[in-house]
Amino acid sequence: MTSLENIRLAVFGPGLLGGSLLHDARALHALELRVWARREESLTALREMGLADFSSTDAAAVAGGADVLVLCVPVGGMKALAHQLAASHPAHGAVFTDVGSVKGMVMREVAPVLASAGFTFIGSHPMAGAEKSGLAAARKGLYQGAACLLTPAPQAPRAAVDRLHTFWQALGCFTSEMDAAAHDAIVARISHLPHVAAVLAALTAFRSGPGGARFAAGGLRDTTRVASGDPDMWSEILLENREALLPAVRDLLAAGAQLVAAIESADAAALRALLAEAQHLRAMRYP
Amino acid sequence: MTSLENIRLAVFGPGLLGGSLLHDARALHALELRVWARREESLTALREMGLADFSSTDAAAVAGGADVLVLCVPVGGMKALAHQLAASHPAHGAVFTDVGSVKGMVMREVAPVLASAGFTFIGSHPMAGAEKSGLAAARKGLYQGAACLLTPAPQAPRAAVDRLHTFWQALGCFTSEMDAAAHDAIVARISHLPHVAAVLAALTAFRSGPGGARFAAGGLRDTTRVASGDPDMWSEILLENREALLPAVRDLLAAGAQLVAAIESADAAALRALLAEAQHLRAMRYP
Repeated sequence: MTSLENIRLAVFGPGLLGGSLLHDARALHALELRVWARREESLTALREMGLADFSSTDAAAVAGGADVLVLCVPVGGMKALAHQLAASHPAHGAVFTDVGSVKGMVMREVAPVLASAGFTFIGSHPMAGAEKSGLAAARKGLYQGAACLLTPAPQAPRAAVDRLHTFWQALGCFTSEMDAAAHDAIVARISHLPHVAAVLAALTAFRSGPGGARFAAGGLRDTTRVASGDPDMWSEILLENREALLPAVRDLLAAGAQLVAAIESADAAALRALLAEAQHLRAMRYP
Repeated sequence: MTSLENIRLAVFGPGLLGGSLLHDARALHALELRVWARREESLTALREMGLADFSSTDAAAVAGGADVLVLCVPVGGMKALAHQLAASHPAHGAVFTDVGSVKGMVMREVAPVLASAGFTFIGSHPMAGAEKSGLAAARKGLYQGAACLLTPAPQAPRAAVDRLHTFWQALGCFTSEMDAAAHDAIVARISHLPHVAAVLAALTAFRSGPGGARFAAGGLRDTTRVASGDPDMWSEILLENREALLPAVRDLLAAGAQLVAAIESADAAALRALLAEAQHLRAMRYP
């Protein structure tokens, strides 16, 4: 990790992602940590942890004077918060970003509100997380080794985009740039779809009661792990990305119907071909 | 672990499960390790590892004189091997078992063949494994902490059943007894269904090309992990257990259709309810 020595960082929403950002930024010697939270108690906790140099439940007050600002609230709450920030006075060269899992909605509905307040907004999606959420689950190093996808609008100043690359790389991310639509199509397949598959597996495996599940090995645990994610956050994400997600879920169900047909007709060759394809495709990503 | 000092163990098929059994039995001071494999080279490797005191490609010769005999070949190959064992001369009190993932077929088609040769056969299913298979993946301690489900026929001698409980417990398993049909219904939900879900997630996530998958976080990796399992072995298992598995896969697809409907109609309450149910049910098994 390189340092963040000259950065005045503002975090809006110190949950798992925002809190971990504060842990890392402190460790990387950020000049100042500014934090907004909905509730005063969250800010008190952060001050006691030494993770908030300036904190307030007034979002515009937190935004003023910050160089890098990060929306870390769930995607469903971003737009309302952006409106609260419309009265801010951005520092010169400040760059505003977020950590949301969907980018089309953010670039369409959040970015313009912040732009009207004078901010340069560039979407970010660090592919880091955990099935636990909240400040209690936040930790140093959460972003280490994760991909971070940046979705600048075509007119975004190159210097601001570069600054954001450097920021995420300092946290240990490898960064990549694409437009919001490409981002949403990709994460529908590699993040939101696996979440759906885990939810469906959990419902099917556990609905028959916990009786049999006590015998389960690591396969059930791992396949369903992400289904332990926060239902409020995930239902927002899945709905916000529904346009890209629906074709992916339909593809999964179609593959399921194919597999059922192979099992019903005891077509070993067809079943084996599906399993071999899954094994082969996965091995290309996880050798 | 307790010891296996008085046991002459015979393993038929030294792959991941059989090979790991040999590693453990040696460490637990089994009196004798007897091994059958289809190919002489496998036996040579085992002798060099000190894991075969007597070894042969003649199954009946390996069976003679053994106290605990374990079929560790894939379920698709068990019946043919049982017929090769029909000419054996079982030791007094010998108990024969297997490690197959389906038990109805084994109790129906394999047990009678071995019974006709004079063996007491009791099905076992240790819920241990890995996505790697073969002797190279075998290791000491694979069974530690795993459930092992025993499926004795109603007429099985209690002493033999007890001996098998003790055997698996010595390897670190916690054991449980049920009939073959109950076993197959349970593992359809907790093992075979998650495998199917992982395969469907892998097909859907990776078919669009490896491009996006390089950005994926731990969710995709874990959700699809078991899809790396051996396609030959798993297509056999899924087909052998198709009667119990099909309703489970249909339930998964029905839950998927429900979820699609909730997303299509942007019904946040219905979507959230499905996600919350999955989270809640999983938390009961994995607190």
